[in-house]
This record gives sequence, C-alpha cells and structure tokens, in this order.
Amino acid sequence: MNDVDIQNDGAHGITITREFDHPADKVFRALSEPELIARWIGPRGYENVEVTNDSQHGGTWTLVQRGPDGDEFAFRGVFHGDATPELTLRTFEWLGLPGHVSFESLRVEDLGDGRSRVHTTSVFLTQADRDGIRDNGMDHGVIEGYQRMDEVLATL
Amino acid sequence: MNDVDIQNDGAHGITITREFDHPADKVFRALSEPELIARWIGPRGYENVEVTNDSQHGGTWTLVQRGPDGDEFAFRGVFHGDATPELTLRTFEWLGLPGHVSFESLRVEDLGDGRSRVHTTSVFLTQADRDGIRDNGMDHGVIEGYQRMDEVLATL
Repeated sequence: MNDVDIQNDGAHGITITREFDHPADKVFRALSEPELIARWIGPRGYENVEVTNDSQHGGTWTLVQRGPDGDEFAFRGVFHGDATPELTLRTFEWLGLPGHVSFESLRVEDLGDGRSRVHTTSVFLTQADRDGIRDNGMDHGVIEGYQRMDEVLATL
Repeated sequence: MNDVDIQNDGAHGITITREFDHPADKVFRALSEPELIARWIGPRGYENVEVTNDSQHGGTWTLVQRGPDGDEFAFRGVFHGDATPELTLRTFEWLGLPGHVSFESLRVEDLGDGRSRVHTTSVFLTQADRDGIRDNGMDHGVIEGYQRMDEVLATL
C-alpha cells in the first residue's frame, strides 16, 4: 500500500513514510532534480514557479509556489552534508512565517523488486511550530504531492 | 547569578540559558568572531586549533579541538539565515559520530544595565541522539566554556 503515514513524535517531531513503486535511485532523482521537483511538490492546483536545489554541504534550496488564486508562497533552506539517498539533511522555512525554521532528515530505503520507501523526520524548535505546520494543511500537501510524484516517476 | 540552566525538552530538545555581565553586542561578538570563539569554546584544557564561522545563509562553521592528551575532535555545521543577536540558526555535527546532526537556535537577550542572557535551543532527530549528547559530557563543556567566555569578555 502506498499510503502516507504521518506521526507526531514527542513534542518536537513529525515523521512521514511513503512507499513508491520505483527503485530508490529513481525516487532520489525525483526528490533532487529541480526540474523534476517542480513537477510534483505541493498540492494539486499549485504551480512551482521557482525551484533551486544545490544539495551539497552549505548549498541552499528555494521554492516558490503559486496557488490557484495567484497567491505566492516562498520557502527556503540549506543542506547539511552532501545529500545522498541514504541521508539528506536540510533546513526548512516558510518565508510567510520567518524564523520558524525546522530541520529535516530524508532517507530513501530500497525495498528490492523495484520498490522503495521514503522516510522523513522533521524536528521543530518548539511544539507550537510543529503543531502550526501540522494544523495548517501539511498533510494535504504531502499526500497530494506524493501522488503527483507517482505520476512523475511513471514518466522517467 | 550567572549559573547555566540546562533542561531537556520533550523527547528531542535541550534548552540552555546563561547570563553574562556584558551587553548583548559584546556577547554576540564573542559568539561570532572566530578568533574570540577560539579563546573560549569547550572545556578547560582543550585547545581550539581550527575555528571558522561564516554566519550567513548557507555559510559553514568548523571547529577542531585538541584535548589534553592530544586527541582531536572535529565539528561542523551550516547557518540558516544571516546570524543576528536576535536569532542565529545553525546545524551541529560531531564528525566522530557522522550523520547524527542537531539543529540549534541562539538568541542574545539584552537585559539592560550592561547585562545579557544567552538562550540556546537544540533539537535532535531522535531521542537517542539527544540523550547521547547530554550523557557524554555536554554539561561540563558548556559550563566551563561559558566560564572561559566570561574571561574573554572581560578583556574586550
């Protein structure tokens, strides 16, 4: 089953897992290459008008999404260490709420038989930051984004 | 009282607060300038043989400490956003345990009358990472490091 599992951890964390019907190297490409990220990240109806992803130690990433009514949402972060399928570490900030930054680890587990599982753990500096993200549509964006990623993976 | 207060938060966090008999701008200098950091960070008896601190968005920091018996300990991280006394955000990794990275916020609160209070919050991706740092001499390094910082501040 390729359902998304989303759990709150302690007071500061969120873990997300999702399986894909594609091998780890292909899934990692969809998570890393800006032109592929632009085709899936975020809920349906949102267009990714700017995506950069320099996934090496000290590199930065940026994302600007335009919603159905034209509103724009900008995000940014930095990478700690060089990103690999085994471990990608990066920060995350929505510029609409500056300074409320979280830290995220991402791992693409190869399941064999052309399948893989993506594990994401995010930790927040306060419980309020964690709950703010969780209560403001995060689940919807993750679930629909991963469905769009299925569609992108099918074309690679 | 300039005692260090260190608390575990939830399963993932550590908060540290410490007052200084010096204004916020001077304390921020001691926290930011590599040649000043080198004079205080870590427990007594440890020499800081390499310190870099490029505290802007995507900038990196590095630290190499040499212990009393000559063993070297290397640390590194990246900055999210440009560091200010009001908010500094950065990652932290001890290269002896690679991949076990934490995320830290630091704020220097001006208390008036030439005094200030440093607030640090660290969040870890797992409780085991948090407890590993807390149980392996972190308190000792922080307490003695801040005492050495008092001595550096007195010379500025």
